Amino acid sequence: MAGERVNRQLVLRRRPRGMLTTEDVELVEGPVPECGDGQVLVRQVYLQMDAAVRSWLDEGHGYLPAVEIGEPVRSGGMGRVIESRHPDIPVGAWCAAGLPGWQDHVAVDGDSPIVNHFPADWDALFQLAVISSPAATAYFGLTDVGELSAGDSVLISAAGGSTGAVAVQVARNLGASVVGIAGTDEKCRWVESLGAEACVNRRTEDLAARLRELRPQGFDVYFDSVGGEVLDIALRRLAPGARVVIVGAISMYNASGRPPGPSNYLNLINTQAKMVGFQGLSYVDRYPEAWDLMWRWKAEGKMEYKADVARGFESCVDQLNSLFTGANTGKALVQLIDDPGPGPY
Amino acid sequence: MAGERVNRQLVLRRRPRGMLTTEDVELVEGPVPECGDGQVLVRQVYLQMDAAVRSWLDEGHGYLPAVEIGEPVRSGGMGRVIESRHPDIPVGAWCAAGLPGWQDHVAVDGDSPIVNHFPADWDALFQLAVISSPAATAYFGLTDVGELSAGDSVLISAAGGSTGAVAVQVARNLGASVVGIAGTDEKCRWVESLGAEACVNRRTEDLAARLRELRPQGFDVYFDSVGGEVLDIALRRLAPGARVVIVGAISMYNASGRPPGPSNYLNLINTQAKMVGFQGLSYVDRYPEAWDLMWRWKAEGKMEYKADVARGFESCVDQLNSLFTGANTGKALVQLIDDPGPGPY
Repeated sequence: MAGERVNRQLVLRRRPRGMLTTEDVELVEGPVPECGDGQVLVRQVYLQMDAAVRSWLDEGHGYLPAVEIGEPVRSGGMGRVIESRHPDIPVGAWCAAGLPGWQDHVAVDGDSPIVNHFPADWDALFQLAVISSPAATAYFGLTDVGELSAGDSVLISAAGGSTGAVAVQVARNLGASVVGIAGTDEKCRWVESLGAEACVNRRTEDLAARLRELRPQGFDVYFDSVGGEVLDIALRRLAPGARVVIVGAISMYNASGRPPGPSNYLNLINTQAKMVGFQGLSYVDRYPEAWDLMWRWKAEGKMEYKADVARGFESCVDQLNSLFTGANTGKALVQLIDDPGPGPY
Repeated sequence: MAGERVNRQLVLRRRPRGMLTTEDVELVEGPVPECGDGQVLVRQVYLQMDAAVRSWLDEGHGYLPAVEIGEPVRSGGMGRVIESRHPDIPVGAWCAAGLPGWQDHVAVDGDSPIVNHFPADWDALFQLAVISSPAATAYFGLTDVGELSAGDSVLISAAGGSTGAVAVQVARNLGASVVGIAGTDEKCRWVESLGAEACVNRRTEDLAARLRELRPQGFDVYFDSVGGEVLDIALRRLAPGARVVIVGAISMYNASGRPPGPSNYLNLINTQAKMVGFQGLSYVDRYPEAWDLMWRWKAEGKMEYKADVARGFESCVDQLNSLFTGANTGKALVQLIDDPGPGPY
């Protein structure tokens, strides 16, 4: 493996309209990058599929610049350090190299604040499925932004997704009562097994009626990563002084043209509620606080996860789209190769 | 006058669709109400035209129950106490009797917390145009909800309206730099005379381009009572950590069917901004704080106003609609009779 001479990259060929298609990307081969002084060379094992990945393909939408045509699709990932020119990072370590994108290898500065490395025996799947981005988004989104208190009534959309499932457990572990929203019965049952008192299937049930029935007094916190119609319905089910935490809008990222906004936003006046935009990234200095708590809860059996793992670059497009169609449950990943283990390679 | 035997009321005949029309209301006559023990009988001189008046005519939209068919249209007002059975309220006093509605007389409990009385020589127009609701909405909306600091860049829509014009001056007096948005050149010039550095005519100028030009870094606070397209444009001009204070949505109150929501709400994520619903009413305990400041600023020549006064019940419908068409500048009022003065009657 250290002897591989080829770096495969899945690069953007043209900007997608709506869902990403296999026509929008192209698999290209290039040389494996050199490992410079102070750098490590990472052989990626897992690619992380996140809704934000799709948003980065559009111009002028996200909080990072758009991916350029010809660049690898940007995403999180995790792999093994197969060559190290950094004094503190051994070969064999697991490494999440910032946003390495859809490619086999990256060479990154070991001192970069966005490059995180872990012991060779780390639980890489828990790291990817819970810690890497869901933990901070769910934890700070609910506590700092959502001002969650024990006893609050919390509504969580996309509750069967990776962030939603962590949010359900964070809210429950902190003493709130949780109602989830998901897109399949299978997800709903899983969300309920994670501690939600109920989970509404938004495709088969009357969401507005069910939410009214479940919480006639409305919700104190609404954690939203869906947007669109679901957000609009939730805006009518707020308790006085409610906090709506906007972490994303899965239903809108693929819209071509201008998607509709939440026309019930005026209910913010009636309930004197607020709607707050939130990026986990802004809590980067406090990430360890969320991470420590997740590992502790894991040890106590209070933090479950599912990983939905597909194989190879050829599954990237479908796996990303599964986030928007609702086909996946839990954290969507693409595994590029079998874990080569701690080396030597 | 004390001898009038008839109380005219403009009552709701049917629920309006879109703008209120003269077909939707009916002038009826009934007996002047009895002044009970502890009550005062008020002869209304001015009716207050507020956007909320229109919203109270629809079912299930507002923070108060809808006006029933056959009831007077609900609104604020101010008149003279022409009969008193309350020990502390003399005949001749000015009185704002809660939400007395479109009628000549009301009998109200002098001890009610929503009944406010003033000396016979009070500046009733300043009270109506600045104090009665704009003061609290503008002041607490900007300071408490908008977290305004000196040096902030503030954007105010409907800046030529009664609340907007007070908000412009509150922001300026507190050391912020202000850009206004209004619907006519005449209003824009007035808003600039109140201390806004610029005021954009949203009907004749390219609002998005002008806002970008005026404040390339975006706005720290956006005080919105318009909604619709203007809100959507403003949501793309937010500075990081901005506060969007939603006090109303003049552009949407008359919409039949479901008006579009602000599709750019997702920019709240990019800027980590928040959008907060606000009712002046919730600050009722702190009203005097805002009122004292407004009177002081008035004395110092730092709080101007305009009153747009029409005469008689027959002008109520047009005067209310002027809030939505943008035909009025400053506080819209209907004067029912000449001020009868301090009595005796």
